[in-house]
Amino acid sequence: MSIEDEIGGWRRTHYSSQLNPRLNNEHVTLMGYIASIRDHGNIVFVMLADKDGEIQLVFKKGKGAGNSSSDNSTTTPTAVIDDGYTSIPFSKVKSLKEHSCIAVKGRVKVAPNAPKGIEVVPEELKILSLARSIPPFSVYSKTFPNLDLRLNLRAIDLRRYYMKTIFRIRHKVLKAIREFLDKEGFIEVNTPKIISTASEGGASLFPVFYFDREAFLAQSPQLYKEQLVTAFEKVFEIAPIFRAEPSRTNRHLAEAISVDVEEAFVDYKDVMNLLERMITYTIEYIVNNASDELKIVNPILTVPNIPFPRYTYDEVIDILRKNGYSIEWGDDLSSEHLALLGKVINGYYFIVDWPSSIRPFYTKNNGKVAEAFDLMYNDLEISSGSSRINKKEELIERLKIQGLRIEAFEYHLKVFDYGMPPHAGFGLGLERFLMTIARLDNIRDATFYPRDIDRLVP
Amino acid sequence: MSIEDEIGGWRRTHYSSQLNPRLNNEHVTLMGYIASIRDHGNIVFVMLADKDGEIQLVFKKGKGAGNSSSDNSTTTPTAVIDDGYTSIPFSKVKSLKEHSCIAVKGRVKVAPNAPKGIEVVPEELKILSLARSIPPFSVYSKTFPNLDLRLNLRAIDLRRYYMKTIFRIRHKVLKAIREFLDKEGFIEVNTPKIISTASEGGASLFPVFYFDREAFLAQSPQLYKEQLVTAFEKVFEIAPIFRAEPSRTNRHLAEAISVDVEEAFVDYKDVMNLLERMITYTIEYIVNNASDELKIVNPILTVPNIPFPRYTYDEVIDILRKNGYSIEWGDDLSSEHLALLGKVINGYYFIVDWPSSIRPFYTKNNGKVAEAFDLMYNDLEISSGSSRINKKEELIERLKIQGLRIEAFEYHLKVFDYGMPPHAGFGLGLERFLMTIARLDNIRDATFYPRDIDRLVP
Repeated sequence: MSIEDEIGGWRRTHYSSQLNPRLNNEHVTLMGYIASIRDHGNIVFVMLADKDGEIQLVFKKGKGAGNSSSDNSTTTPTAVIDDGYTSIPFSKVKSLKEHSCIAVKGRVKVAPNAPKGIEVVPEELKILSLARSIPPFSVYSKTFPNLDLRLNLRAIDLRRYYMKTIFRIRHKVLKAIREFLDKEGFIEVNTPKIISTASEGGASLFPVFYFDREAFLAQSPQLYKEQLVTAFEKVFEIAPIFRAEPSRTNRHLAEAISVDVEEAFVDYKDVMNLLERMITYTIEYIVNNASDELKIVNPILTVPNIPFPRYTYDEVIDILRKNGYSIEWGDDLSSEHLALLGKVINGYYFIVDWPSSIRPFYTKNNGKVAEAFDLMYNDLEISSGSSRINKKEELIERLKIQGLRIEAFEYHLKVFDYGMPPHAGFGLGLERFLMTIARLDNIRDATFYPRDIDRLVP
Repeated sequence: MSIEDEIGGWRRTHYSSQLNPRLNNEHVTLMGYIASIRDHGNIVFVMLADKDGEIQLVFKKGKGAGNSSSDNSTTTPTAVIDDGYTSIPFSKVKSLKEHSCIAVKGRVKVAPNAPKGIEVVPEELKILSLARSIPPFSVYSKTFPNLDLRLNLRAIDLRRYYMKTIFRIRHKVLKAIREFLDKEGFIEVNTPKIISTASEGGASLFPVFYFDREAFLAQSPQLYKEQLVTAFEKVFEIAPIFRAEPSRTNRHLAEAISVDVEEAFVDYKDVMNLLERMITYTIEYIVNNASDELKIVNPILTVPNIPFPRYTYDEVIDILRKNGYSIEWGDDLSSEHLALLGKVINGYYFIVDWPSSIRPFYTKNNGKVAEAFDLMYNDLEISSGSSRINKKEELIERLKIQGLRIEAFEYHLKVFDYGMPPHAGFGLGLERFLMTIARLDNIRDATFYPRDIDRLVP
């Protein structure tokens, strides 16, 4: 049967981060997975990793059975420690493999040559789960060329310290964003992901079989968050959005997390100010509260100045033409255009006042120019937003112009009969924002289990 | 053309909650929707509602045009205010309807007879959005019998103060839960909602057409959160789950928000302790930080004592039999059984140690009894959890026993080759938990836009 042990009554007393030389000679119970093993024959060094970091365990051969930790046997010439010897059968120690989950009871020892000036000498060992395979990457490697191999084994890929660091930062980014919006008086909402109609037009929807009806996965909470400002005025939602775009780029996902914000009685300029304050609040929070993580992924991160530079669409067209691109007023910006912009303009900046023809139907406009913006970081669009239309006739007119079926939006249009306030808002792509903070090249590493046209598993 | 005004350069200076008698004679700019109108002919009282509450506006006829606010015209016998008369054409005031969105510039006046001891005398008025219809319910009504009518007009239904209160509490519940889990060292994760395989068995899934493949909406993040503890040890996710159950009860939704928590190196008793601390932390937060809201929905809410009572499944069977129910060991509890329990046992309590045959395949068990629990509130199940199997052979065995296809879980099983720690966790239904805090009878009022077999719109 299994040579593995049950956890039983053992419980961790310390995380690796809680160990320090002041605990010298204290008994501790540690648990985690094995990051690495250095086997020197009669002495085996094990780096034990837990959620906070790692600690060196030292197993030495030559000690008898029994639970005593006193040094009552022959000394070993290679000894670097002078007591705390264990009753653990050495064959058990030798059976350990990297990535196995273990628990040890032992003593903390000051050890000037150990990675943190301390190590732990185990007196008891439980093998909670013995690894049968060794993954093709080390937990210490920052990069590994084969993305598919990593994603196929994503749970284990995430044990790499580099990946764990990204997601610790992600947690703090979410925390900072919510803290900011809460302080600003926004309430968190959740809107349905199974919907009857496209909110941004008909393209790029995943169909769902909903009981006996056809439905779709929401591309965005757009129409719902607009409706919710009628009662709550200031709302935000942080939730998945679904886009059936057959893109194979480093910046598109079929399922992503969107930070959606909507506010009544303001226009696009107000929410641009709000957005740039949210961005700087979050980055400042990360700089102040994730300095260890930033050392690994982005040591040069600094809080950008506000206001962010604002370029009108017209100015962007001028820049592109001066750089040899032929682009007509009214054209959307292609990835080539954005690549050029990213070389000319650095950091966070807005592009404002877009042609209304290339913005969604709900965008407020004067017939030609929309009160709309994109927030960019170099060549990467991380957010877009606008003032919204709050008059029913205007909205119906835009639906017609964009060739959408009025009847499909009846449920939304009727809200406008009951006093729809002027409002504005934006959606921020969480993964893309994280790319700018953690300096990631591929959006797939800003999410736990990426979804794209080629990948549905794991 | 439209008689409606643009917001232009006007911006709110105060929310209703920020007004008080110390601002007497100050100029303010207010915005909101009209909760009620009392038209006394030459004097019109308007209750203006914003996200925080409401304030009384007093419009009086008999003043001439011009922007002056000085009292330079004939006095009106019914005057209750002595200056601040307006240049607003009275026909514009008379055109106002409830629910219209307006903006006013005016002066604060101490008014002992007004609801808060103050009112505002508008000097300028913008009608930002004129209501064309009056909804069948008042913003002041706590209950309204026709649920369908309300849900069809949900955005406006949410303007009722009672509903706004529920969702302000909901925001604070989410905030408290995240605060608690963050302090406990958990990181927030997001797992895919589009998945290839059922996580709880094959029933109750919504199929999705994913590019050229069949996929499903996730019933729970179960297998993903289990995988993520291999790297992160302590994870939580607050996200939608999707269940195609054709239920028409007051406690089921097809789309709900689940608070999922998973932890490595612990068992079900540890996470029961964690869960009850999370519940009491949250309720304590609400009691301390939402006293105004509780006055409206649940003035008697108190923090429950911990530990919550724990009943074994065997004890529950005994209780049921003593009350005349014939139930066999191994039977699941029906809604009739739960109804009886809710009469015998009050408040929050656990039912533990369930027959393994009626728990999901990943539940740790001794072949007969599972290390599993449900958290109940009276007759309502609000959470369930367990120790999980962390040995591959055991998991394969349970998949077989429950008649599931091993191949469909290959992507999950292979993680167990790389050292899967012992772990345990739970899922808490956010809407059901909110029902217990805000004393709601119908789960549909614990969510913004409910989804069930009969409802996909709005």
